[in-house]
Amino acid sequence: MSLRILLVDQDAARSAILEQALHDAGHQVVARIKHGHNLLRELKECQPDIIIMDLEAPGRDTLEQMREISRDQPRPIILFSNKRDSEYIRQAVQAGVSAYVVDGLSQERVMPIVEVAIARFREFEALKRELQETKTQLADRKVVDKAKGILMQRKGLSEDEAYQLLRKTAMSRNMRIADVARTLLALEGLTD
Amino acid sequence: MSLRILLVDQDAARSAILEQALHDAGHQVVARIKHGHNLLRELKECQPDIIIMDLEAPGRDTLEQMREISRDQPRPIILFSNKRDSEYIRQAVQAGVSAYVVDGLSQERVMPIVEVAIARFREFEALKRELQETKTQLADRKVVDKAKGILMQRKGLSEDEAYQLLRKTAMSRNMRIADVARTLLALEGLTD
Repeated sequence: MSLRILLVDQDAARSAILEQALHDAGHQVVARIKHGHNLLRELKECQPDIIIMDLEAPGRDTLEQMREISRDQPRPIILFSNKRDSEYIRQAVQAGVSAYVVDGLSQERVMPIVEVAIARFREFEALKRELQETKTQLADRKVVDKAKGILMQRKGLSEDEAYQLLRKTAMSRNMRIADVARTLLALEGLTD
Repeated sequence: MSLRILLVDQDAARSAILEQALHDAGHQVVARIKHGHNLLRELKECQPDIIIMDLEAPGRDTLEQMREISRDQPRPIILFSNKRDSEYIRQAVQAGVSAYVVDGLSQERVMPIVEVAIARFREFEALKRELQETKTQLADRKVVDKAKGILMQRKGLSEDEAYQLLRKTAMSRNMRIADVARTLLALEGLTD
């Protein structure tokens, strides 16, 4: 599979090493920018599969944009840096860097680093997705319980009858049961 | 902080590079073994903070032991390997490798690699812990709901009364509410 890569690199010589290695492996650098200030905008414009950054040390603003990318439109991010400070490394990893590589820029090492970053990114995303789904199930269950309680009290229904009423309404309105429950709570002036 | 390291390395020359870099950074190699066959046993014996493996390519048996470690007593695992095959890299990352490094063994690169591996390990463990907690909450909620349903039906209680009965029993027995609910379901011959 050919990957589309956004390259962030100030240094033309180092960038040439990266571009050559990527090109030799059949991948395509779709954009090269010199710093990370406009990372988000570039990401939206060129929709790369991966972001590779070769920077001394991305500043706060760039780290913040990396965090936003990880949250809203996650991509593997590879960072070649010379900064060895452990607190800085921790911040970069938390900001979503899939591979943080110190002193590692040589042509034959680029592709293994990309492979590892993609594998790790997928592993992390799968875990994040599972967490999100479990949180949704838990939130749905809480809201359905509350709605059932209201229907039982208001209409003198049993628990099962209350659930069946929510279910029937969801089917006829073409909504999820949890969303029917949320609508009911909103009408009652309650938040979930 | 001084780290205790379990080193898995066949090659004395490469092992010397690793040991020197770790020693210079104030860390301690608590055991060195030549292959990963007894990884689990060594882990239990010497209780290292980190595992560093310098192996051509760990076999299935070693990968399986790494998976067990990740599940039962997770530690950052750093793997120096020459295997660039993406399927193999994927398997190693899934088995819990925090850093998979190809061609990267030089003394000055060891500590940054260790720092990145620790940061990534902590990030991943925090996510795994959050997932586990959310799953437990969801499972508890399901089991408490089932138990409430039984009490409501058997004893003609309201939902709130059923919950209060579970809660009171939990307090007097010094148990979690979910465990009281599980005990009730077990007595009914139901599984959660």
